[in-house]
Amino acid sequence: MNANEVRMKATLAKTASTVLNRLDTVQKNEALRLMAQALRSEQDLILTANLEDLERGRQQGTAPSLLDRLALTPERIEAMAEGLEQIIELPDPIGDTLEAIDRPNGLTIDKIRVPLGVIGIIYEARPNVTVDAAGLCLKTGNAVVLRGGSSAISSNRQIIEVLHRALATSSIPVDALQIIEDPNRSSVDEMLKLKGLLDVIIPRGGKSLIQNVVENAKVPVIETGAGVCHTYIDASADPVMAANISINAKVQRPSVCNAMETLIIHSDFATRHLTQLAEQFKESNVELRGCAETLALIPSATQATEDDYYTEYNDYILNMKIVHSLQEALDHIAKYGTQHSECIVTEDQDQAAIFIREVDAAAVYHNASTRFTDGFEFGFGAEIGISTQKLHARGPMGLPALTSTKYRVYGNGQIRR
Amino acid sequence: MNANEVRMKATLAKTASTVLNRLDTVQKNEALRLMAQALRSEQDLILTANLEDLERGRQQGTAPSLLDRLALTPERIEAMAEGLEQIIELPDPIGDTLEAIDRPNGLTIDKIRVPLGVIGIIYEARPNVTVDAAGLCLKTGNAVVLRGGSSAISSNRQIIEVLHRALATSSIPVDALQIIEDPNRSSVDEMLKLKGLLDVIIPRGGKSLIQNVVENAKVPVIETGAGVCHTYIDASADPVMAANISINAKVQRPSVCNAMETLIIHSDFATRHLTQLAEQFKESNVELRGCAETLALIPSATQATEDDYYTEYNDYILNMKIVHSLQEALDHIAKYGTQHSECIVTEDQDQAAIFIREVDAAAVYHNASTRFTDGFEFGFGAEIGISTQKLHARGPMGLPALTSTKYRVYGNGQIRR
Repeated sequence: MNANEVRMKATLAKTASTVLNRLDTVQKNEALRLMAQALRSEQDLILTANLEDLERGRQQGTAPSLLDRLALTPERIEAMAEGLEQIIELPDPIGDTLEAIDRPNGLTIDKIRVPLGVIGIIYEARPNVTVDAAGLCLKTGNAVVLRGGSSAISSNRQIIEVLHRALATSSIPVDALQIIEDPNRSSVDEMLKLKGLLDVIIPRGGKSLIQNVVENAKVPVIETGAGVCHTYIDASADPVMAANISINAKVQRPSVCNAMETLIIHSDFATRHLTQLAEQFKESNVELRGCAETLALIPSATQATEDDYYTEYNDYILNMKIVHSLQEALDHIAKYGTQHSECIVTEDQDQAAIFIREVDAAAVYHNASTRFTDGFEFGFGAEIGISTQKLHARGPMGLPALTSTKYRVYGNGQIRR
Repeated sequence: MNANEVRMKATLAKTASTVLNRLDTVQKNEALRLMAQALRSEQDLILTANLEDLERGRQQGTAPSLLDRLALTPERIEAMAEGLEQIIELPDPIGDTLEAIDRPNGLTIDKIRVPLGVIGIIYEARPNVTVDAAGLCLKTGNAVVLRGGSSAISSNRQIIEVLHRALATSSIPVDALQIIEDPNRSSVDEMLKLKGLLDVIIPRGGKSLIQNVVENAKVPVIETGAGVCHTYIDASADPVMAANISINAKVQRPSVCNAMETLIIHSDFATRHLTQLAEQFKESNVELRGCAETLALIPSATQATEDDYYTEYNDYILNMKIVHSLQEALDHIAKYGTQHSECIVTEDQDQAAIFIREVDAAAVYHNASTRFTDGFEFGFGAEIGISTQKLHARGPMGLPALTSTKYRVYGNGQIRR
């Protein structure tokens, strides 16, 4: 039954994608406008459905922080509608010419952006992802098959019903937006097999979700998320800037992937400033773990284990590691990092240049918080996620990441000799 | 033992890739020049090793056409050396700036091309791929792990020895170029698992090779090759042009992926011209298979089965299908095509525009042979393969397809509010 639901909905989405492929920007934007309008006018239905999810969550003993992420309010629904309106304002990448080639034999070739086709998105609790992902995929002419977390199933189902009513009055076929309702893990497994129906799967969520998708998908995947991010404070760093940047990277929002997990400190800096910096972290309620040299300077810290250095805490916990050279910092990052966002704080331009060149990551920073790795902060206006892979898209993904390309070749009878 | 060889060599390649990442274009080109020189000066060693492969092939009863592909001559070795020299002439994409963003908060962000890291290439008989792939990967600052076919193992091993001696006198570490010598299938299986060591695997070869890689790889894959390409002759097509293009697409080189496998003909055109066109195909020794309507016009053709329409013959065999509308042609291509190269021959610009827009393929043609889907023919100067997937690269892949990107973010103390 699960397999049937998943395959059937993906097939409907694929058929709808050929219609979507023909729509122009005005038609797609009009559909997004109707979707935003419907969210506002039918918000009571969505709030009621959300109460079911919250009630079920409370009965199952869900943690209050997770319930908070799940909870919808009129303000949060308004934010979803505004999110769609922001997507309307973004330039439509479809049809953009990326290359134009005139060949000596008279062939005219161009390379244009086209939709990927059908995008599968597998995500966790927050129902706003449902609206956000739908808007980004439809704007780029893609059909989408959503598979949200079971804890938000009533909210997601109701949101999709509302959006479907909006699409029914638009040029976009209702079938272009699908949600898998089966709450069992088997529906995820089924999605991962749908090569030929889904053109890409984007997992958005925790480490185990992403790992399952990456390891088991037959469909191409854009890997997102996992961030064991480092800040390296070089010997020559300005101590005030180093404190500002590293504290911001840790505590401004610890639960997200671009937050810092490990602070690497050059021993020259550590000797002079680490005691005071550690005090500032403690004032921000950050638990400190460190290497032996760290503990010698900060006796209140606990010993960091090998595992700790690999861990994305997403919490008020920080690993510290004292090094004696830039190379040692680079080696630590290469070993424990997830190629997400890495920062050097230094006044030495040469050290900065080496760090920027040598660190293999989606985003490499000199003298700024890693928290800026974000589609909005980079000026893209929206973001489908942050890719931590090297193929297709790397770093914050705006609308172009949801496109493929096509070569168009125009001739007047050319044949190959 | 196999697993050890594969993992060990991939690890050495990964370490070498960090050195390669630092080299400039001049250093990389100098290494390629030394490689070309070594192929010429040590060609006798390579020819002797090739004789071993040929002798073993003959003993094993290998088909003469395969032995011909395997055979090296001084001319073919010279062509390999010249191929490297052509790669030297190509612009180096590494370091190219793809985006430059100035943010209101003073952050300066750019997005530059960087090497992918380590590229795995799994391929079949022809030893020239060994040189070609090595050159393209090293030029783009990537280390490479090659796994050639067992039939060419002596030639490949000797070629790599020669290239290693050249690299030893260059800035590129010898370890950046690895070849897996284990002839067993298990060494391929092992490569497919090396997530974290290999950044991408590119299979080059027949359908079963590619399918095995795509279905079993944990490492990201760029799918290449399989081409069930169609030419659609519209009602309004110029009959001479239609014949020239379709015959060229079939017989100019039937063994390659961009050759035509199925000719779709509008019934209006078929009634007037198909008998004569079929004669021309027969004169070119093409066996004709067709639908019932085809057989009514060309009784000498045999019935095409459902399987035939899915088959990449790579041979002097052609499927024919008569349709009564453009839509029927589009539906046939969507069902049986492999999204490689598809062509419409028509004098009707409206029909051409619909075909170009609706067909979902890497390259879509109006009035030119599908045989032009090729990196050299598109003017890229070289080609690592033709991608038939939608992510990362689609169609003929030049040097930029062997790169990833990195965001560099420069600040002066910016933190996120």
